[in-house]
Amino acid sequence: MTILDDLIQQLSRLPGLGKKSARRIAYHLLSTDKSLAKQLGTAISELQERIHRCEDCGNFTEHKKCHICIEQGRDRNILCVVEQPQDIGVIETSHEYGGYYHVLHGVLSPLDGIGPEQLNINQLVYRIRQGGVKEIIIATNPTLEGDTTALYLKQLFATDNVYISRLALGLPVGGDLEYADRLTLARSFRARTAL
Amino acid sequence: MTILDDLIQQLSRLPGLGKKSARRIAYHLLSTDKSLAKQLGTAISELQERIHRCEDCGNFTEHKKCHICIEQGRDRNILCVVEQPQDIGVIETSHEYGGYYHVLHGVLSPLDGIGPEQLNINQLVYRIRQGGVKEIIIATNPTLEGDTTALYLKQLFATDNVYISRLALGLPVGGDLEYADRLTLARSFRARTAL
Repeated sequence: MTILDDLIQQLSRLPGLGKKSARRIAYHLLSTDKSLAKQLGTAISELQERIHRCEDCGNFTEHKKCHICIEQGRDRNILCVVEQPQDIGVIETSHEYGGYYHVLHGVLSPLDGIGPEQLNINQLVYRIRQGGVKEIIIATNPTLEGDTTALYLKQLFATDNVYISRLALGLPVGGDLEYADRLTLARSFRARTAL
Repeated sequence: MTILDDLIQQLSRLPGLGKKSARRIAYHLLSTDKSLAKQLGTAISELQERIHRCEDCGNFTEHKKCHICIEQGRDRNILCVVEQPQDIGVIETSHEYGGYYHVLHGVLSPLDGIGPEQLNINQLVYRIRQGGVKEIIIATNPTLEGDTTALYLKQLFATDNVYISRLALGLPVGGDLEYADRLTLARSFRARTAL
């Protein structure tokens, strides 16, 4: 196998890239400015050495604590629990939430051998038992695993004096009833709100 | 700007990748096996040092000559001229062509400042004037620039004893008249063949 084929194969294993787009990128990297290609390669090589988990919340950071955990003036009463670090960015764009976060780095999935020990849950327990947090908003994905994880956390903190909530399910804003799946539709009926 | 944002920006400049897919890949590289990320980074960094142009045809290769130029038993009478090295792979999959190739590394595009000197044309002239080639198949893309380049080459070799052809234009196999654009349809009428 040639160097180029090898690179194409490595690229095609990245999420969202197929064989064709991997090939296109590889040829682009060959034809582009040499220093740009080198820079990208170095950035990827050194990524995991320079970025690690925030010691408080588990978010990715170059420092000991992430940029959100060191931010003053956020609401210390609420903690939003997410599956992945990238979920934080998505939630931040909504400008709806002003508390701190906790990243699980996954969800419970017994079939894949992922139990509570494989997730960043001990640190969550530590943060809650330290006191100060009045509400945990569980923002795991509305999937089977996300729901299971939410229920697990609810039981875990059942005897702690903390209110546990979950993001609302329903029709997406701007969506069309015609294209809503029946599970979402059923949930939005059940959770209908007074007008 | 953080290291991660910087990587996302670099990735989003690659062909076919937008901001969202670049972000997804960056987070994947952070969570994946560290040695795999390192391996990919090194492959990208070293790519342009290890791969260069074939001294005969301009195709990318790790050696002095590419794997096609060193292949014996191909038809030395024909040369297929393509825009980019990746075009060779596409043509090879058709199993229709058995000659050698020549890669221009671009097309004439005066507006972008790309004239004959910027392309791998001198080497093409050298190969043709060496003798032995009876036909040049010009397989540049059927675009304005591809057509211009084809015409330029036709004039360049007007006094050489070489037959110059161009890939046929027409309806794609398995295509549907309903979806054919009018230019393609017009060309396929003009070039209609006896049944």
